[in-house]
Amino acid sequence: MLETRLDLDRIRAACRVIDPQFLHTPMYQCEALGRRLGCTVSIKLETANPVRSFKARGTELVTSLLTEQGRTAAVCASAGNLGQALGWSGRRRGLDVTVVASRRAPLAKLDRIRTLGAELELVDGDIETARERAASIAQQRGIRLVEDSLDVETCEGAATIGLELASARTSFDAVLIALGGGAMATGVGYVLKSLLPAVEVICVQPMGAPALTRSWHERRVITTESTDTIADGVAGRYPIPEVLDDLLAVADDAVLVQESSIVAGIRMLMEHTGLVVEPSAALGVAAVLENRDRFADRHIVTIICGSNVDMNAYHHWVYQ
Amino acid sequence: MLETRLDLDRIRAACRVIDPQFLHTPMYQCEALGRRLGCTVSIKLETANPVRSFKARGTELVTSLLTEQGRTAAVCASAGNLGQALGWSGRRRGLDVTVVASRRAPLAKLDRIRTLGAELELVDGDIETARERAASIAQQRGIRLVEDSLDVETCEGAATIGLELASARTSFDAVLIALGGGAMATGVGYVLKSLLPAVEVICVQPMGAPALTRSWHERRVITTESTDTIADGVAGRYPIPEVLDDLLAVADDAVLVQESSIVAGIRMLMEHTGLVVEPSAALGVAAVLENRDRFADRHIVTIICGSNVDMNAYHHWVYQ
Repeated sequence: MLETRLDLDRIRAACRVIDPQFLHTPMYQCEALGRRLGCTVSIKLETANPVRSFKARGTELVTSLLTEQGRTAAVCASAGNLGQALGWSGRRRGLDVTVVASRRAPLAKLDRIRTLGAELELVDGDIETARERAASIAQQRGIRLVEDSLDVETCEGAATIGLELASARTSFDAVLIALGGGAMATGVGYVLKSLLPAVEVICVQPMGAPALTRSWHERRVITTESTDTIADGVAGRYPIPEVLDDLLAVADDAVLVQESSIVAGIRMLMEHTGLVVEPSAALGVAAVLENRDRFADRHIVTIICGSNVDMNAYHHWVYQ
Repeated sequence: MLETRLDLDRIRAACRVIDPQFLHTPMYQCEALGRRLGCTVSIKLETANPVRSFKARGTELVTSLLTEQGRTAAVCASAGNLGQALGWSGRRRGLDVTVVASRRAPLAKLDRIRTLGAELELVDGDIETARERAASIAQQRGIRLVEDSLDVETCEGAATIGLELASARTSFDAVLIALGGGAMATGVGYVLKSLLPAVEVICVQPMGAPALTRSWHERRVITTESTDTIADGVAGRYPIPEVLDDLLAVADDAVLVQESSIVAGIRMLMEHTGLVVEPSAALGVAAVLENRDRFADRHIVTIICGSNVDMNAYHHWVYQ
């Protein structure tokens, strides 16, 4: 029995409250990409939905619970994707949503949060500054603070991806999961370790934002002073102790990748799969590029977790 | 009762033999694209699968019937997507597949046909030349000729998209379908006219390859001397009489669009949905761009039917 905060029955039950358009996402083998990477590659595609990321699996769960409790408002800090997802799920259920984000977040993400009708507050500083501000708004207004990765619903929502992977008709050897706050990694990892323990759960983080990966390796929370990565969606500095504990229970490995590999991954995903992805979604491909021997001839699944990207930055990565 | 060659019960039965990874494809609203087009836009995404087009729905059906009949080989002419799909479905069932294509077909499509293990024969000329050559190979070798749009299985396979549209949880006013040989248009159109007769079925073809659209308007087969369009997947010159009859029974309209609108559609789909598409898949957006008034404030569904595109050409369309 895995010792985590997550619960398989609750995760199964979550599927009943998540809007079906976020569930049963495509999973398919991409031979063209696999040939370039020297292994069998399957894609689990989390971007073909109204918010273009996996985050709505979690916010659907959170907001359905809030509605049950008669709450009418919520606030979150977000690098961009959680804010969109909470905006979408909140609008659907008539909740007032406030999102706090860094002024440096991709404009595409900020624009899309606004058009969903959420109140957007920008802060100087990074996601950690936004987290502090969101907490203070929650306290001032007496509304629910949605904390990505700390709130177990965000992990258990993401964990429904794991249920789908576990019921796939083809077997696979390893799953590569972008590691940011840890909701997706602990969620998917927990389900796979519960149902398919032989599958290797590998978390991937940028070298420029290594806090949680370092923490996992040293088995204690390690923070960093700053981050420096194009993968804005996974650039935290203060790992959450409870999330680290869960990650220690479910992850087989956590690796760091270079920025140049992330860019190469973005390009390969465009070239060989026809997918425009945000940098976080290219972390899995980047990990294979940096360690081809490890994955040679194995069947890996990489979760394409988001595609909210500023097109100017994207064009620059793809063509410069 | 619609008078066509298609049959709703057979279409429902087809879902049982088509590999599930080609079924229940994502359908979701894209608000960012809708804002630019002045209407509500839902995408039906047919590219998140191993062959990156809807064509495997048909080839899964064809090859399962061939296997039942104890056949071991098949040949088709293809603009590229049918060849990949037949290659994929044939390989899965141990059939020898030969594909005849134009030497001018996109290299990406030709490469992917080869890597699936199909025998690829290239002809000078266009898809109509390839059709003649495929027929002669079938006769010489005594093997099954798979004729796109003429073989009812290719239409009924594509028609399973219509079943999914008809069971969508949100209602919509019109569906925009790329018109080439007519398999997708007659298939999807037949199901929608059977189950949701109020939904407008609108076929879209490039002005540079107008044969079937003109034929539909004049209610008789009209051929053209040549084609001139970037939308290689829909560039036929000789409409098939049986297909025209079906199309006359199920389509509400058939419109032609300019090349510049197709390019604009490709760009908008990249910019606002993060999807790399081949030109045929942008025909629906192109049709809205050319007649915004017609679609204003309505809910349209556009089928993103394929993403097999040469990246050099794609970059040229997007950036020049």
